[in-house]
Amino acid sequence: MVKIHIPNNHPRAESLRIREKLVEGFRKGVVVPEGLIAHGRGECFDYLIGEKTQPFAFKAEKAAVALLLLSNHPVISVNGNSAALCPTEIVKLAYLTGSKVEVNLFHRTFERERTIEKILREQGLDEVLGVGENASGTIPTVCSLRCRVDPRGLLVADTVLLSIEDGDRTMAYRKSGKNVIAVDLNPFSRTAIWASITIVDNVVRAFPNMIKLAKNLKKENKETLKKILETYNNDKILKEAVKFINQRLVRLGHEKVFGFSLTEEVLQLAKLNSVRLKG
Amino acid sequence: MVKIHIPNNHPRAESLRIREKLVEGFRKGVVVPEGLIAHGRGECFDYLIGEKTQPFAFKAEKAAVALLLLSNHPVISVNGNSAALCPTEIVKLAYLTGSKVEVNLFHRTFERERTIEKILREQGLDEVLGVGENASGTIPTVCSLRCRVDPRGLLVADTVLLSIEDGDRTMAYRKSGKNVIAVDLNPFSRTAIWASITIVDNVVRAFPNMIKLAKNLKKENKETLKKILETYNNDKILKEAVKFINQRLVRLGHEKVFGFSLTEEVLQLAKLNSVRLKG
Repeated sequence: MVKIHIPNNHPRAESLRIREKLVEGFRKGVVVPEGLIAHGRGECFDYLIGEKTQPFAFKAEKAAVALLLLSNHPVISVNGNSAALCPTEIVKLAYLTGSKVEVNLFHRTFERERTIEKILREQGLDEVLGVGENASGTIPTVCSLRCRVDPRGLLVADTVLLSIEDGDRTMAYRKSGKNVIAVDLNPFSRTAIWASITIVDNVVRAFPNMIKLAKNLKKENKETLKKILETYNNDKILKEAVKFINQRLVRLGHEKVFGFSLTEEVLQLAKLNSVRLKG
Repeated sequence: MVKIHIPNNHPRAESLRIREKLVEGFRKGVVVPEGLIAHGRGECFDYLIGEKTQPFAFKAEKAAVALLLLSNHPVISVNGNSAALCPTEIVKLAYLTGSKVEVNLFHRTFERERTIEKILREQGLDEVLGVGENASGTIPTVCSLRCRVDPRGLLVADTVLLSIEDGDRTMAYRKSGKNVIAVDLNPFSRTAIWASITIVDNVVRAFPNMIKLAKNLKKENKETLKKILETYNNDKILKEAVKFINQRLVRLGHEKVFGFSLTEEVLQLAKLNSVRLKG
């Protein structure tokens, strides 16, 4: 396969580089075709939040780390896309917060599970849950093979960190009484609405942010961490995200569509064309 | 590969079915991994316009058909994604408007070109331009292999219909004096802004709509068609699209995030959780 060169001056260079990471994951058998499409969907929402960690996301990331540190059985759930985009960061965050890591796939095959397990082990993770026979537990109401979970991991978890996930799963986990931290770029998704803490951010920024936060918050006592959670309001965070996107779209409209800088040149061409058509 | 069953009651059933079409195209070698991601990006914008043909799109589709019928050398450019999603409709529209059809790929390989040619021929198209040695012409300033065009097609075209395309190409065509009709779900993209006529719609709806329109407009005289174009204002259409998306996001925010129907249940759970956390 040809390696695509991405010019630095391309308006979406960073986004295209992340895209290539995912395509590489796809070639390795980690990411499925559907995962590539799901990523594209995320790309668009990322574009809507300005491809940066916005304050609403950072607040959620801080609360998420406090929650992981306070939980008795925190588990980070890994799917193909997150394994392709940030395996190193997943392992680091798990280590810093004392979380277990479990592989959980929609398009489940033993081969894919093993490939992801291998990637995580290469990053220094000793225990990778949820692979093969180990996923012998079941979480009710989750259809698809994602219902199969590890009795040492997702089954007994009190807090689950999910990224790029389907709403069904988030709802099932909440209904079974678990706390769910969801990294999801779409603030309107069922996952975003059902999660206890919704991080409207790209995983490639959310995980490094949480690692930095964990390094600091690890030193704090339980009372401080509880205070962070008590003052955190996910409903408010989602509203902030939605407001931000709306304001950004209005701004984008003004700059790109309602503005005159580029449009002038375009209108000139349009005029030339319509003259030609009329003639 | 396992065929995925999509439940009819899934909130995004239709979108998931289109997704599977693309994955099938991918397995046939028509669609590249990057094309899957690009599709996902489009999916999100489609969600923002309500996954329906909105009035701004329909007006653009009507003007597009008038322009194709008035042009001397209209060409429909086909890439992997459009070949996977609507090959039958591309051939029908070409037939109804007297347009030629040319294959033009970013990730160009002879094998892919031939696969797409075969698909179009199966739909009854006699002449498929731009395949292999036939793409001996060059359109300046288009980087990547998309610059290679057929001297009987894109090189001499006065009007080009593109779908799901990169901004570079649209700009190069406009600068070379061609009319560009672009089907693009992102009204902020360079393609959307540079095109003569921007159809902010999904190709799976835009092509069937244009086929219906072409059947009717074919019967009209040139003056009527010219009038449609003279009263068409692409700048206004883009503004309508941007306004629509903004209003829809405000509405979505109210229904899903600011509303109380679902949130009540979520808040109950959140309360349970925070009690548990505090305890």
